Amino acid sequence: MLKPGATIGILGGGQLGRMLAIAAQQLGLKVHIYSPDKDSCAFDVVHAFTCAAYEDEAALGRFAGSVDVITYEFENVPAKTAAFLAKRKQVMPNPRVLEITQDRLIEKNFISELKIGTAPYASVHSASQLAAGIEKVGLPAVLKTKQLGYDGKGQAKIAKGVDANAAWRSLKNEPCILEGFVNFEREVSVIAARSADGKVECFEVTENEHRDHILHLSKVPAKVSPALAAEARKIATKIAKAFDYVGVLAVEMFVVRAGKKQTVLVNEIAPRVHNSGHWTIDGATVSQFEQHIRAVAGWPLAKPVRLGRVEMTNLIGTEANEAQHWLTVPGASLHLYGKKDPRPGRKMGHVTRVFGK
Amino acid sequence: MLKPGATIGILGGGQLGRMLAIAAQQLGLKVHIYSPDKDSCAFDVVHAFTCAAYEDEAALGRFAGSVDVITYEFENVPAKTAAFLAKRKQVMPNPRVLEITQDRLIEKNFISELKIGTAPYASVHSASQLAAGIEKVGLPAVLKTKQLGYDGKGQAKIAKGVDANAAWRSLKNEPCILEGFVNFEREVSVIAARSADGKVECFEVTENEHRDHILHLSKVPAKVSPALAAEARKIATKIAKAFDYVGVLAVEMFVVRAGKKQTVLVNEIAPRVHNSGHWTIDGATVSQFEQHIRAVAGWPLAKPVRLGRVEMTNLIGTEANEAQHWLTVPGASLHLYGKKDPRPGRKMGHVTRVFGK
Repeated sequence: MLKPGATIGILGGGQLGRMLAIAAQQLGLKVHIYSPDKDSCAFDVVHAFTCAAYEDEAALGRFAGSVDVITYEFENVPAKTAAFLAKRKQVMPNPRVLEITQDRLIEKNFISELKIGTAPYASVHSASQLAAGIEKVGLPAVLKTKQLGYDGKGQAKIAKGVDANAAWRSLKNEPCILEGFVNFEREVSVIAARSADGKVECFEVTENEHRDHILHLSKVPAKVSPALAAEARKIATKIAKAFDYVGVLAVEMFVVRAGKKQTVLVNEIAPRVHNSGHWTIDGATVSQFEQHIRAVAGWPLAKPVRLGRVEMTNLIGTEANEAQHWLTVPGASLHLYGKKDPRPGRKMGHVTRVFGK
Repeated sequence: MLKPGATIGILGGGQLGRMLAIAAQQLGLKVHIYSPDKDSCAFDVVHAFTCAAYEDEAALGRFAGSVDVITYEFENVPAKTAAFLAKRKQVMPNPRVLEITQDRLIEKNFISELKIGTAPYASVHSASQLAAGIEKVGLPAVLKTKQLGYDGKGQAKIAKGVDANAAWRSLKNEPCILEGFVNFEREVSVIAARSADGKVECFEVTENEHRDHILHLSKVPAKVSPALAAEARKIATKIAKAFDYVGVLAVEMFVVRAGKKQTVLVNEIAPRVHNSGHWTIDGATVSQFEQHIRAVAGWPLAKPVRLGRVEMTNLIGTEANEAQHWLTVPGASLHLYGKKDPRPGRKMGHVTRVFGK
């Protein structure tokens, strides 16, 4: 259990690392950010940071020596980096989680083994496997590289009647997973926190709208029945337990109709704080960032209570230019991440609005 | 008007500077802290800081050159420092405010000239003036050095029948103000923000309980009538306007009974964010820290809405050891300031609890 004044090391220097750092500091903890990107926006909000490659073992060694525990803000920390650090300091969530979630196929298998539903999927390591995969999951389908993709990168849609092999070639013959199309009613996510002593606290189910594969809007409560919400939270809890997880994870799900009944299929696990949980900063009695810090510090989790009906809108690219407008909207809380270049698709900030209960 | 990414310079590195820095960063601004104290807890939450004396003009010059605007977290910034900086960058609130509030006598005169009530007071520059002062304000009374005192330091109580000159000598013959005792029903404060274009937003009147001259507990709403609350807010607004103030200020007041009617007397003005406004971080839709940053950035203020009945408890000295307990209290938000040494009387953190409306 960390004492106030201890230092949490965070791998990754984006907005998630930045918001984790702020949460840790509000609890009296210190933060050391490690990121290879010299423009990391999390550097601006901490006293100690290391700008070095994830392969730089000398820098990693010094980093591990300067912190009390290590966590990360994103799932693509190289497995070798995580293993190197884990020999020197406790890394939470445990690096096995990274091995599973860095590979879409391994992740899907892991979920399936827990008897949790997913979209139909098939492993595709060759053009011939692609044909068999299409046979199994049907069309339309999405071909995704097994590794290293997010926000719609490393994906190719395969529609009926088009050349499936073109999709395969566009992903440069990398090992892929083919995922069948899910005719979903809505997309939801559950943000769950698990403490070192195994207690789980889920935030309320969040409904998400994407634009161009990037989260645009999150709304809470989600338009789902109490039974479905309970099912979704149960699934997130089950996954957190199966990982022996410590910290916050997000489970993205599709709400689908099975006859008269609604059910959920798991789309993706993010072993970290998640964009769809940003509403918790202003819209709940504890934020996902504070829950994650409490967990990795070995502290008890808080019981989150939502403060009203909440909407969180991402500010993507030049949408950040609307910041001045948002400052004048009653009840709107503006968050900007301190990034210089508003590139298309880049998450620059978000706005949370809490409406009366 | 500052653009996101601009840098706010803050004089002072205590918990107020720390919480101001966090608020600025959440809005996408950068922060540079200037403090002579190498253990400044605000240094831990920013990338840029200067640890140098307030008399170090070379360091002050570099500081002014590296920031876009300058503000401060405490009223005892030396006048010469403020003047030196104001020639180089805009300092908000304007340094004239410091001149007034650094001297209890000048402050009381300023308040009186606004036709706002205060405790009876008298200027005491000599033992003979002390006798005349006692004649004027009555006993018991409190003798306070005109300058540089807070949290009960630089004060001596004079009761009936005791040697008044002993109090005078205990304050080392420094110029003093003698304040008559006010038989108050409760202590309240108003936190007001004023924007660069002259708009004022007050937070709701806060009721404060002190222990050993240090704030122990703040409660909102205060137990005062709507009329009295309106009067208190009007007074804070009047003071902010008279100062041509930009930023957040706190006005501490006594609630007294005048016949059947309650009224307020101003006790003290703090030209900065204030301990009795810490509840706004978790208990309102905008915090006093964000309001101050919005104001000095030239941005519009937000309209604060309180989220419920709120209680803020300071963690003083070793009370910070109760932090682990507070982590388990439902709905309690713990804030620790990252200070190492829990000296008696030192503000180590605070806890805010928001109860249902």
